[in-house]
Amino acid sequence: MTIQVLGLCGSLRSKSTNRGLLLHAQAHAPDEMKIHIADLLDVPFYNADIAEKPAAVEHLLREFAQADALLLACTEYNYSIAPALKNALDWASREPDNYLLAGKPVAIMGAGGGMGTSRAQYHLRQVCVFLDLQVMTKPELFASAFNDNFDTDGNLQDPKLQEKVVQLLAALKTWHQRLQCIK
Amino acid sequence: MTIQVLGLCGSLRSKSTNRGLLLHAQAHAPDEMKIHIADLLDVPFYNADIAEKPAAVEHLLREFAQADALLLACTEYNYSIAPALKNALDWASREPDNYLLAGKPVAIMGAGGGMGTSRAQYHLRQVCVFLDLQVMTKPELFASAFNDNFDTDGNLQDPKLQEKVVQLLAALKTWHQRLQCIK
Amino acid sequence: MTIQVLGLCGSLRSKSTNRGLLLHAQAHAPDEMKIHIADLLDVPFYNADIAEKPAAVEHLLREFAQADALLLACTEYNYSIAPALKNALDWASREPDNYLLAGKPVAIMGAGGGMGTSRAQYHLRQVCVFLDLQVMTKPELFASAFNDNFDTDGNLQDPKLQEKVVQLLAALKTWHQRLQCIK
Amino acid sequence: MTIQVLGLCGSLRSKSTNRGLLLHAQAHAPDEMKIHIADLLDVPFYNADIAEKPAAVEHLLREFAQADALLLACTEYNYSIAPALKNALDWASREPDNYLLAGKPVAIMGAGGGMGTSRAQYHLRQVCVFLDLQVMTKPELFASAFNDNFDTDGNLQDPKLQEKVVQLLAALKTWHQRLQCIK
Repeated sequence: MTIQVLGLCGSLRSKSTNRGLLLHAQAHAPDEMKIHIADLLDVPFYNADIAEKPAAVEHLLREFAQADALLLACTEYNYSIAPALKNALDWASREPDNYLLAGKPVAIMGAGGGMGTSRAQYHLRQVCVFLDLQVMTKPELFASAFNDNFDTDGNLQDPKLQEKVVQLLAALKTWHQRLQCIK
Repeated sequence: MTIQVLGLCGSLRSKSTNRGLLLHAQAHAPDEMKIHIADLLDVPFYNADIAEKPAAVEHLLREFAQADALLLACTEYNYSIAPALKNALDWASREPDNYLLAGKPVAIMGAGGGMGTSRAQYHLRQVCVFLDLQVMTKPELFASAFNDNFDTDGNLQDPKLQEKVVQLLAALKTWHQRLQCIK
Repeated sequence: MTIQVLGLCGSLRSKSTNRGLLLHAQAHAPDEMKIHIADLLDVPFYNADIAEKPAAVEHLLREFAQADALLLACTEYNYSIAPALKNALDWASREPDNYLLAGKPVAIMGAGGGMGTSRAQYHLRQVCVFLDLQVMTKPELFASAFNDNFDTDGNLQDPKLQEKVVQLLAALKTWHQRLQCIK
Repeated sequence: MTIQVLGLCGSLRSKSTNRGLLLHAQAHAPDEMKIHIADLLDVPFYNADIAEKPAAVEHLLREFAQADALLLACTEYNYSIAPALKNALDWASREPDNYLLAGKPVAIMGAGGGMGTSRAQYHLRQVCVFLDLQVMTKPELFASAFNDNFDTDGNLQDPKLQEKVVQLLAALKTWHQRLQCIK
């Protein structure tokens, strides 16, 4: 059975290096894993005053519903999570019984400055505790966005990082299997 | 000389209890302090692909420019910062030399579940390290949004919490003075 | 098969409320779970200059080796982890291939001030990421050490908290089973 | 007037690179700053059952009393603070009115793996919030312990890092002055 993975990127920029990580993952997913990348451009800020969910939100929630696992490309802004990614999770968290998220396996990766978005990733892990999302402990993936690791279009070029993305997906597949055993 | 304080609220909801904290602060500011509350409703997500700053962003940046200090009402969603607040800081951080933020004194408060947004507040403090914002260590202000502390319109009703808001502002005033001495 | 659980307490005080949580857990462990509580009183600070492991350390490492899972009573000092608990994990982490810790299921609980050691617990969760310890997302257990929840000897008295400890152990048992499936 | 700075190192190892940072700081302190490095080897774990403070603790507390500022060399073990450093602060925090710590200026630095102990440093900053210690936002100092930055005795060799230590001390001196203005 194919594992449906929803990829979410914190950066809205079209040539984002974090999107580049997701695109590489999508193109090199292991057998029996399919990665769909959400488009967050039209998803507004969560606001309890919004009576009816906007179409982009409804669409996003359907993508969460279809996902067996999440792949989070954790852009870091100012030592914490990029708001667009956090906001996507916030919308998903408002559904009854947290049914869109609870118990789903998660892999996190990120590209950024010298520490590869690590500061944001630990914040994101704390968010996942509340959301009952099961983040893998290892491997962690911290990519430098410099040193020609990505081309100017945000495509991942560095062979070692490419290999790390592939390893992350393999680990996610195993992690998904382990969590399936007893529900 | 009057200290100009910019108040920012993580929740976009009109009857937000965090907005209620800000409104109470605004109405009870000490002598020589004036609190202006930003409207974040029309501020879009930061996106490097946006070539020209939207009017709401330009307006917000002018508010930051006029502020001597910040008062952050730190709504917590899912154990971290509400995206609208983080996003306002992210926009402000993009100006040359971080001149809108660097060195400014900050007070943080929050209303929420049993822990009064403490989890989000520590994330926000880490953000302020990068932004070179000078957050007071004490007092911290964690308000429960329950127990009739706020009315249904989000207005702060509890006398003890009202007093804590006033104390926070007094401390912010002193903190601003201390940081002025040598620049 | 019985699950062997090693209980560790951050406080060295004999009448510690965190020890009280562990003692209650030990006395009310579910079928097929046995809880052993480590004695950390004679375990010195980790120091790479110590050529030969002290007897208390050797003893502790054997206890880790025999454990299928960990139950951490996370005392909070000054908004972070009590050093005695962190130090026990630091010693265990130095063995080859992290074999004493890698992959083991963990439950965390804590008794303290109003927030029930939550600040320390999130630090501890970050430590467990590196140690490849699999901490349950839920339930979390935050106990107030006040309001007669504990008697003056540190024994857990509050029926609701007693029930929460029992629920935590039931969840740990299920979590252990889930993680066993594929290794 | 000379600023008396107390240096504390998380690692107990004699050839520690974090001690190397402190020793370099001590040898290159600016005018009107004197750095004394505490010896934590004989300081036991804080334990409320200890009726009388051990001599090493009494000695340490006197060093805190004489300090105008703190310089913390934040060794990282397993993604958080080395217990010996945390424990020293825990002991100091138990004195009446937190008089040994409250309001004192602090600089943090650290040497370690690729991220230069950043994960531990953010935990330490959270600890300092409770302790009412005034940590500088900038500069931050993250030193890699590799690439011949230190010799095998732990002495700091890299000229760029040496310069960063000197800059940290200059910033601490200014920070101390700013905080002196109004008490």
